[in-house]
Amino acid sequence: MKALEEKILKEGKVYPGNVLKVGSFLNHQIDVSFMEEIGKEFHSLFQNEKITKVLTIETSGIPVACFAAICFGVPVLFAKKHQTKNLSDDCYSTEITSFTHGNTYQARIEKKYLNSDDVVLIIDDFLANGCALEGLMDLIRQAGAKCVGCGIVIEKAFQDGGKRLREQGIRVESLARIAKMNDDGTLEFIKE
Amino acid sequence: MKALEEKILKEGKVYPGNVLKVGSFLNHQIDVSFMEEIGKEFHSLFQNEKITKVLTIETSGIPVACFAAICFGVPVLFAKKHQTKNLSDDCYSTEITSFTHGNTYQARIEKKYLNSDDVVLIIDDFLANGCALEGLMDLIRQAGAKCVGCGIVIEKAFQDGGKRLREQGIRVESLARIAKMNDDGTLEFIKE
Repeated sequence: MKALEEKILKEGKVYPGNVLKVGSFLNHQIDVSFMEEIGKEFHSLFQNEKITKVLTIETSGIPVACFAAICFGVPVLFAKKHQTKNLSDDCYSTEITSFTHGNTYQARIEKKYLNSDDVVLIIDDFLANGCALEGLMDLIRQAGAKCVGCGIVIEKAFQDGGKRLREQGIRVESLARIAKMNDDGTLEFIKE
Repeated sequence: MKALEEKILKEGKVYPGNVLKVGSFLNHQIDVSFMEEIGKEFHSLFQNEKITKVLTIETSGIPVACFAAICFGVPVLFAKKHQTKNLSDDCYSTEITSFTHGNTYQARIEKKYLNSDDVVLIIDDFLANGCALEGLMDLIRQAGAKCVGCGIVIEKAFQDGGKRLREQGIRVESLARIAKMNDDGTLEFIKE
């Protein structure tokens, strides 16, 4: 998605350790008009699927998931990373390791919100090593639901998550695929 | 907002300890079409203010904040509850006590996303004791920005947050105000 690549080049900041900060529009401040465009793009990519639910995980995937879901006319369900009194005990649960944050956590969804009739599109802001997506797919599997694929805003294609998922036959659509992040603060996209 | 009261009566579940679960549409599964209606309602209430930014806090306020912000044509900024590598050290920070979750945490926003020119509408899903809103207002104050008020989806009006904020002259618009939650699982709204 050309407009996304341009926005990343204009507003994104590259830091050592392959950190890309896009807090101006994606994961701290949210450019909602732009997120609406991204939602429409995911709808266009997956419009032939009979999606019943969009699944994401706290926190930064939620705005994009909402703007995609509104195009499909279906609800969003977001997996919770943090134990809360508002979550029932009757949950599907899976362990996810975050390399970004250097921790491991349980992602949970209440069983009643996902079942074997559901056809699910996963949406998330970033794909790097793929652990979050694999966790979400595990939750879908536990519910006996069907996953039609993953819509990702930014893929760090130099990490192995996307490759591993695609090799398993999972449809992964990333709107910007970063080939390389350089020490001088620049980055390069994969030319499709 | 009549449609919201009806939705709470239909889908909400009251549990002992004044817990109201609305996970079917507001804070786990998200009914995005309904959130869009709620966003429009906040726009209608605050349309005479020259808002430049909608501020909320992780996690469940984010969808509503996004659908309100798109009506105003401004970005959302969400305060982060959890330390992350993606957040710079150059933050405004405030301590918030959550009675729901029985803990105290630092809420942070990066300084560069809020400044003295900003006119801010706070949006959140719940108002009970008001600590989260007071924390967000403290962040706005630290930035030297102006707060025009708070748009709340559900206010537990039997707790003192809303009263205390309104007594300070803060405009608080709650779309559903719960007067009482009963042991038999029923609840009553304040008649406006």
